Amino acid sequence: MTAPDDQSLSPLSFLIRSAAVWGDREAVRDGRRSWTYAEHHARVERLAGGLRTELGVEDGDRVALLLPNVPAALELHYAVPGAGAVIVPLNTRLAAAEYRYILEHSGASVVFCHRSLEGPCAEAVEGLPRRPRVVRVGEGAGGDDEYEGLAATAARAELRRPRDERALLSINYTSGTTGRPKGVMVSHRGAYLHSLGQVIEAGLTTRSRYLWTLPMFHCNGWCYTWAVTAAGAAHLCVPSVDPDALWQRLREERVSHFCAAPVVINMLLESEAASPCPEPVRAFVGGAPPSPALLERAEQLNFAVTHLYGLTETYGPLMICAWNPAWDDLSVAAQARLRARQGVPTIVSERARVVDAEMRDVPADGETTGEIVMRGNNVMLGYYRDPEATVAAFSGDWFHSGDAGVMHPDGYIELRDRLKDVIVSGGENIAAVEIEQILVEHPNVAEAAVVGLADERWGEVPVAFVTPRGGGALDPDELREFARSRLAGFKLPRRVEVVDDLPRTATGKVQKFVLRDRLSGGEDRPAPSP
Amino acid sequence: MTAPDDQSLSPLSFLIRSAAVWGDREAVRDGRRSWTYAEHHARVERLAGGLRTELGVEDGDRVALLLPNVPAALELHYAVPGAGAVIVPLNTRLAAAEYRYILEHSGASVVFCHRSLEGPCAEAVEGLPRRPRVVRVGEGAGGDDEYEGLAATAARAELRRPRDERALLSINYTSGTTGRPKGVMVSHRGAYLHSLGQVIEAGLTTRSRYLWTLPMFHCNGWCYTWAVTAAGAAHLCVPSVDPDALWQRLREERVSHFCAAPVVINMLLESEAASPCPEPVRAFVGGAPPSPALLERAEQLNFAVTHLYGLTETYGPLMICAWNPAWDDLSVAAQARLRARQGVPTIVSERARVVDAEMRDVPADGETTGEIVMRGNNVMLGYYRDPEATVAAFSGDWFHSGDAGVMHPDGYIELRDRLKDVIVSGGENIAAVEIEQILVEHPNVAEAAVVGLADERWGEVPVAFVTPRGGGALDPDELREFARSRLAGFKLPRRVEVVDDLPRTATGKVQKFVLRDRLSGGEDRPAPSP
Repeated sequence: MTAPDDQSLSPLSFLIRSAAVWGDREAVRDGRRSWTYAEHHARVERLAGGLRTELGVEDGDRVALLLPNVPAALELHYAVPGAGAVIVPLNTRLAAAEYRYILEHSGASVVFCHRSLEGPCAEAVEGLPRRPRVVRVGEGAGGDDEYEGLAATAARAELRRPRDERALLSINYTSGTTGRPKGVMVSHRGAYLHSLGQVIEAGLTTRSRYLWTLPMFHCNGWCYTWAVTAAGAAHLCVPSVDPDALWQRLREERVSHFCAAPVVINMLLESEAASPCPEPVRAFVGGAPPSPALLERAEQLNFAVTHLYGLTETYGPLMICAWNPAWDDLSVAAQARLRARQGVPTIVSERARVVDAEMRDVPADGETTGEIVMRGNNVMLGYYRDPEATVAAFSGDWFHSGDAGVMHPDGYIELRDRLKDVIVSGGENIAAVEIEQILVEHPNVAEAAVVGLADERWGEVPVAFVTPRGGGALDPDELREFARSRLAGFKLPRRVEVVDDLPRTATGKVQKFVLRDRLSGGEDRPAPSP
Repeated sequence: MTAPDDQSLSPLSFLIRSAAVWGDREAVRDGRRSWTYAEHHARVERLAGGLRTELGVEDGDRVALLLPNVPAALELHYAVPGAGAVIVPLNTRLAAAEYRYILEHSGASVVFCHRSLEGPCAEAVEGLPRRPRVVRVGEGAGGDDEYEGLAATAARAELRRPRDERALLSINYTSGTTGRPKGVMVSHRGAYLHSLGQVIEAGLTTRSRYLWTLPMFHCNGWCYTWAVTAAGAAHLCVPSVDPDALWQRLREERVSHFCAAPVVINMLLESEAASPCPEPVRAFVGGAPPSPALLERAEQLNFAVTHLYGLTETYGPLMICAWNPAWDDLSVAAQARLRARQGVPTIVSERARVVDAEMRDVPADGETTGEIVMRGNNVMLGYYRDPEATVAAFSGDWFHSGDAGVMHPDGYIELRDRLKDVIVSGGENIAAVEIEQILVEHPNVAEAAVVGLADERWGEVPVAFVTPRGGGALDPDELREFARSRLAGFKLPRRVEVVDDLPRTATGKVQKFVLRDRLSGGEDRPAPSP
């Protein structure tokens, strides 16, 4: 043992404490079955024991998870590090070739694979020189699959917190829109602190009931895998995001909190099953700003929506659009504008800045664009086995988000665009997101994506792709008229294309390069400028 | 600079962030004046600058604070560490000789002294070989004293977080009932984590308004000096605990939280100014368990009382009697019994155990007494310049509280007594607190203290000192009858003495040794046993 104050920070502490303090409280529920914290802890300790003794996992080994939001995914977020190993969560929507790359790059020795994903998993491991052991996860906990054998019968092993709290906890591969995925290295210390921050920012308590709409493979579920446990709250697992099923869970299981991308929230809001919740539900939105229409509809349903911002490299949300009580008396429209911003660092986050190319802060005028850079315990250790990319991302000792934003006079940061998505037209920078936000204010528009089209005269001109809301009619000319009164002339989309849906990556990001390709080379090739 | 994730933990971060995020929100109010977080931060930075340039304070110097709960006490909780120095908070109720000892032992080079305490301060420094510089603090911030000169005009210095987060932040001298005070060493890391824990356990948000009933010189106000700032909430300073004034502040300033010893809460509850608060007020009680009568009366006034437990050595409350929702439907009496317990480690605390002399856990039966021992980041670094006492307190690598308790089957710890306060009678151990809790259940008893009286036959017998509630009549015989039905025969007080008040230390602990002296040698000397 060591000095009594020498306790290394690790999210494993949260489960150990909640099992001791909240042992009789519900920890995990998957719709059919439920486990208390004492039971959940026992299963995790058996899995940790099984990992060491039956699967031969050793300190520092990588263990991949190819799982939807079943209880096993949560259990392994404790059992793997508790056995001294490192989690590698895999996005369930990737292709076999992508899994193969990640498994090889991470050197995973074990893959826990859900039965619904055995096809691509088998294909992925087939071609690997060092084939990992694949452990089948069936119906999830309570079934009779190989996984359940470990969870039910292996000898319990006490969860081992690392001596060095900066030890590797998880490697989270970012899907990106181009290039090979990079492995973001998450530490025990960072996850512990980020989780405490989320408990505070989300107001989680032991009475909270958290619905798992956000995939756990996204930045370990933004650390809610650990934050919900820290609070002694209940994890409500849902393997897929069917709106009817979600509404049923929302009502029957008295959900208090959930996180999601706007596309999922929109799906919920527009579902026929939607009706106001009896108690307020706190919803955290990331990936894109909530539109005024979303905020308004959400309020009707008793959802309190907060906008978060971050990247895989920052454990998910390093920033929050924290509500300032001074906004209480503003108009709904003014509130919506403020609430769409990315906001301020969370309580445990060090600092976020908007800087120019020489790392000088841009003026806090809400106008001057710069790159958002961040520091804090919830910035990654670096990219796994990629020192070059790490050095590039950490230029000047700050993490570079690659996102362009502005600093408002009140200290809130607002994203303008991914840097590469800026459209330069007639010497003016145009943020695509600025146009997109205007377009989705139109009542018949569901989603909008704006890209630059090469133009002989202006360099680039913006072109918009929009999807109609609820299958209604959408007139491109009428939409341009709508935008004309809300945008500077040079920002008006030169063309508006109505499409059934937008091309997306496996993680739901719009693939703007596909749209650009379509414009420059596809069947939608524009007529040359006059 | 260093890697972007390399951020040392320090409560200074909380002020830096709140000044950036909540700059326009109220930070400090003293009844007459008020400062926003931006203004508060500016004053703190000027004080930090003044400490270095005008008072010659250097890295690691000790700076003593002899201040009631005025804004200056709060400001210096940031300015002193922000200047690289170490806080030494002094209890305002000590005698000059005690100040002299602490100033000499800590080697303080500067003392910030409130004008109301100049007498004992002058007497204390008079006899010191190395006389510290005394800086006069007048009406508090906004006046024209020497302190205000620094806060208003010194050049601002950026607050400096230490590179090593285990660096010394504060030395808190424990008053104790016997012997010389010991200097408890508090680290930046411990204070940061303990503060986050208190934000979570108390549910502090930026809308919270914290009333400073608890002295800031008690364990840095149980770290609420830093926790309230972390949340961006308002500090409401009160230099003394006059019940009428407190009730005025409670109402006019919409107080949401406060901490206090039961004696202060009782004073509030019994004040003629008392009436139900319009919004719930969360009150945290430490130092002694809340009685059922206190809990009941508090609820009538819309106070939600939670019992905390800890020592100066554990940054104040390392434990909390966390409410388990399973208690919701119990009777009020059953709830009161559960709520009087010391509870479980807070969310950031590692572990608390009840152990026998060989450091083995006692059975979790709610009966077997052992010593409460603790580990965690919120255990002190050790005693300042007293390695011997440190080694003794850290025996077996756990901090030894010196308190006797039991472990209940649900994992909650309940204090039985200070180990030295156990009365041994006829071979049976009697916890004085057990008798005291019964006596205060009598409607006419305000407070009770029980000590052992030497007895030829039984070794010791318990004797009770009680104070009457509200000046009412109190019949010792009737009180013994009252206790007879509630206590085992051997635990019944042999004698009951009605007194006007109990002797207390400067920190409010009952001085049982004074009561014992009174029994054995004073005017109350009992007749010898027959």
